[in-house]
Amino acid sequence: MKILIIGGAGMVGRKLAERLAKDGKLGGREIEALTMFDVVAPTAPKGAKFAVNTATGDLPAKGETDKLVANKPDVIFHLAAIVSGEAEQEFDKGYRINLQGTQNLLESVRHTYEKNLKKPRVVFTSSVAVFGAPFPEKIGDDFHSTPLTSYGTQKAIGELLLSDYTRKGMLDGIGIRLPTICVRPGTPNKAASGFFSNICREPLAGKEAVLPVSEDVMHWHASPRAGVEFLIHAATIDGEKLGARRNLSMPGLAVTVGQQIAALRKVGGEKVVARIRREPDAFIQKIVAGWPSNFDPKRALALGFKADNSFEEIVRIHIEDELDGLIG
Amino acid sequence: MKILIIGGAGMVGRKLAERLAKDGKLGGREIEALTMFDVVAPTAPKGAKFAVNTATGDLPAKGETDKLVANKPDVIFHLAAIVSGEAEQEFDKGYRINLQGTQNLLESVRHTYEKNLKKPRVVFTSSVAVFGAPFPEKIGDDFHSTPLTSYGTQKAIGELLLSDYTRKGMLDGIGIRLPTICVRPGTPNKAASGFFSNICREPLAGKEAVLPVSEDVMHWHASPRAGVEFLIHAATIDGEKLGARRNLSMPGLAVTVGQQIAALRKVGGEKVVARIRREPDAFIQKIVAGWPSNFDPKRALALGFKADNSFEEIVRIHIEDELDGLIG
Repeated sequence: MKILIIGGAGMVGRKLAERLAKDGKLGGREIEALTMFDVVAPTAPKGAKFAVNTATGDLPAKGETDKLVANKPDVIFHLAAIVSGEAEQEFDKGYRINLQGTQNLLESVRHTYEKNLKKPRVVFTSSVAVFGAPFPEKIGDDFHSTPLTSYGTQKAIGELLLSDYTRKGMLDGIGIRLPTICVRPGTPNKAASGFFSNICREPLAGKEAVLPVSEDVMHWHASPRAGVEFLIHAATIDGEKLGARRNLSMPGLAVTVGQQIAALRKVGGEKVVARIRREPDAFIQKIVAGWPSNFDPKRALALGFKADNSFEEIVRIHIEDELDGLIG
Repeated sequence: MKILIIGGAGMVGRKLAERLAKDGKLGGREIEALTMFDVVAPTAPKGAKFAVNTATGDLPAKGETDKLVANKPDVIFHLAAIVSGEAEQEFDKGYRINLQGTQNLLESVRHTYEKNLKKPRVVFTSSVAVFGAPFPEKIGDDFHSTPLTSYGTQKAIGELLLSDYTRKGMLDGIGIRLPTICVRPGTPNKAASGFFSNICREPLAGKEAVLPVSEDVMHWHASPRAGVEFLIHAATIDGEKLGARRNLSMPGLAVTVGQQIAALRKVGGEKVVARIRREPDAFIQKIVAGWPSNFDPKRALALGFKADNSFEEIVRIHIEDELDGLIG
C-alpha cells in the first residue's frame, strides 16, 4: 500500500513515519511507498524497508494537492496546520493553510479517485480547540463546536467538509480531535499550548521553562506515543462503524498543571521542578481559558482508541523515547 | 440607515423588504436606502419612502461582494443560498454559492469597514439542516452540528465563519437557524422541504399537491410573518447579549404532516384536503429523515424571538397575506 503524510516534518508526522518504518505494515498490509510532504523538508525515517519520498511545497498553492495525490495513496494523513497561536495572530495565513489547504486536498482526492471504486482513507487531525467555553464538566460526543480561536474554527470547518465528502462517497474520511500532545519533544513551536510541554521537557533537560498560567488550569493530554497510535488506529478502523459522524474526540488524560508538576517531581525530583519559572501571560491565559479541559469520549473508547494511563507514564515515555532514559 | 438584502428576490427577502417599506424604520432608526441583490432581478417593495436599489449578479464572482458593501450598509441581511435539494444534486454549485459566496461577503465586509469603529450587523440565515440524525427528542442549544446534506454543511460552515469574524471584531454577525418557512407562497422551489408548504398552498388555491412522505413525519415550522420578525429582531438585538455564540436555533412549531392536514381541514374543509395526493418519494424521504423535527430553543426565546401559536394560525396567515382571505 501507498501512504501520504501531509505535515510530515512536524513532530507527529515524523513519529508516525518512524512507526510506519518500524512496522513495515499498516492494518496488516505491506507498505510499498511513503511520501512525506511539508512546507519544510521532512526527514525520512531510518531503516524503512519501503521507498520514502520527501517533498516540500505550499499546500494551498494551485495544483499542489493534485500532485500530492496523483499516485493514488491508499491512506492519506492530513496533519499539516498553522498552529493555534500563529493562526490567531495571522488571520489570512491561518485560513489559507488550514482551510484552503484542506479544501484543495479534498477536491484533489475527489477528482483523482473519481473512477476508483475504493476511495482512500483520509485521516484528518482535528483538535479539541473546536470547542469553546462555557463547557459542561465533561464534554460529551454530541457537544457543539463553538471555537474561540480561528484555528479551532478552521479545524471545525475541516471536520464538516471531511464528513460531507465522505457522505457523498468521494473519500473515506475520519477526523480525530487530538488532545494536546505532551510531552512534545524538540524546540517550542508557536502553539499557545506549548507551555504544557515546555514545563516538562525543558526542566528534564536541565533548562528553565516559563509557566504562563496558574497551577489549577486543567487540560487534556496524550503522549506522542498515544497520538501516533490514534493515527494508526484511525487509518485502519472500519469506516462503517462510524456511520455519518466521522469526527471523534480522542481519549486523553485530564490533569491540572499542578498535577503535571507533581508527576514531574515524582520522576525527576525537586531540582527538576525548581526550573519552572512562573511568568503570567494574559494573551496565553485568555486563549487557554477558552479551551476544553475534560471529556467523556465514549464513541472513541468504544471504537478502540486508548488514552495513556497516567501523567507520570507520559513523563516516563518522554524520558524513554527522547532522553535515552536520562534526566538532566 | 442603509440596508442591504442579499437574496432579495427570494420569498423571505421580498417579504422582509415589504415589511421595511411599511415600517420605514429599523430598530427605531429611519431607513434612508435599501439595496436588494439577487441572481435574478428583485422586485422593489411598493410604497417605500426611501430609495430602493435593485441589483443582479453572481454573488461569488470576483469583486461582486466588494461592490455590494461599498456604500457601507449598517445592516446586511445575507439570505442568498442554493436550496437543499439543489445543493445536494449540484455539489460544486452549492459550495460555490453557499460557501464561497458567504466567505467573499465576510471578506469584503472585513476590508471595507476596516477603519470603521462601528461594524455592520450581518444577519445570516442558517438552517435547522445544520443538524443531522440521530437526534434527542428535542434539540437543545448545545447540540452538535452533524449535517447530512451539503446544504446543511455549507450553512454550518457559514455559522462558524460568522462567529470567527465577529469574535475578531471584523463585523457584528448573528446567524439564525430558520425553521422551515410554511406556508411558502408562490411556486414550488427546489428545496427538498417544499412539500410541507405545497400540501397547504396548492389545495387552498384549488390545486392538487403531492405528499412524498408519510403523515407521521414531524417537522419544525414558522410562518413567513414569523420568519420576517426573526430577521428584524436579529438585526436590532444587542449583540453583546449573545456573547461569543452568535448562532441561534429559532423557535418554531413542531407538527406532524397529519397535524398540518388536520389544521388545513379545520380551516378549509374536506374538499381542500382531498386535493393532497400521496406519492411516496424515496429521495425526498431520505433527506427529510435526516432532518430535525423538534427543538428546545431556550436561548432564542430568552432573547425575545417568538414562534407562531399554532399551525391553524400559520394556515390563516397564509390565507390572509396571500389569498386575500379567500379559499379556492
